[in-house]
Amino acid sequence: MENHEPFLREAIALSKSAVANGDEPFGSVLVKDGAVLLRAENSVFTGHDMTNHAEMNLVKLAARHHDPAFLADCTLYTSTEPCAMCSGAIYWSGIGRMVFACSETRLGEIAGIGLNVPSRAVLQTGARAVTVVGPTNLEEEAAEVHQEFWPKHLSKV
Amino acid sequence: MENHEPFLREAIALSKSAVANGDEPFGSVLVKDGAVLLRAENSVFTGHDMTNHAEMNLVKLAARHHDPAFLADCTLYTSTEPCAMCSGAIYWSGIGRMVFACSETRLGEIAGIGLNVPSRAVLQTGARAVTVVGPTNLEEEAAEVHQEFWPKHLSKV
Repeated sequence: MENHEPFLREAIALSKSAVANGDEPFGSVLVKDGAVLLRAENSVFTGHDMTNHAEMNLVKLAARHHDPAFLADCTLYTSTEPCAMCSGAIYWSGIGRMVFACSETRLGEIAGIGLNVPSRAVLQTGARAVTVVGPTNLEEEAAEVHQEFWPKHLSKV
Repeated sequence: MENHEPFLREAIALSKSAVANGDEPFGSVLVKDGAVLLRAENSVFTGHDMTNHAEMNLVKLAARHHDPAFLADCTLYTSTEPCAMCSGAIYWSGIGRMVFACSETRLGEIAGIGLNVPSRAVLQTGARAVTVVGPTNLEEEAAEVHQEFWPKHLSKV
């Protein structure tokens, strides 16, 4: 059985790195054939752009490096389920699969904010199929950084 | 009564300009107090990034120039209803209102492609209210460029 854990753990590590850098706790990696090709963190505060979510940043990076045909065989691993914006970005980029550890529902329980559109509700409406996996058994491991971060920062969003 | 037509006509003009530049037929403008502050076109092909939708480009530009408090009093006018990605981007940016001429449904009748998530289905789930107006009486004027463009270019998307 395919093991998603190493890549999700790398995304979770990036979510913690984002907080250390002054941003929100989200991280993502792009994987092809078992190798991490690209990494991105949330950078909404340091980048002065509230759309600089980890997945959006990763998709923009991926688009600059690879064409949609290449990206169809890639998986985007992310610490927490992508919002509607990021799910849409994954769709348009051509990325073939997305795997998340912590669900939007779990994030909502902790942070109580944001858009309430499950990633599948966006990705399953598309003309192109995108495989979605998640939440996984690492959900609580991915949620830890949210429990630490959001109670201190809710006034910022 | 507030007149949206001049700003929607400017967005429609930008959608035609995008085609002339080799991209897809979408254009958007950001307006505050009756003045156009920023303009953006689709640039998915010339920018080598399938997420370079007109609204996404405009939101990124707006975020670089203005903070969310300023953007709350701005309106994003766009030639065609934003997709789920762009609706999410508008939400996160803090932009207070969005007005579109041509609906996603009308675009779908012509182009038959893409994500099928109405902008209100994204924006009405948010913790922050975003006013949505559209489609307007300029829907067919905005649809003209789609009727010209998509039958020739469907293989590209």
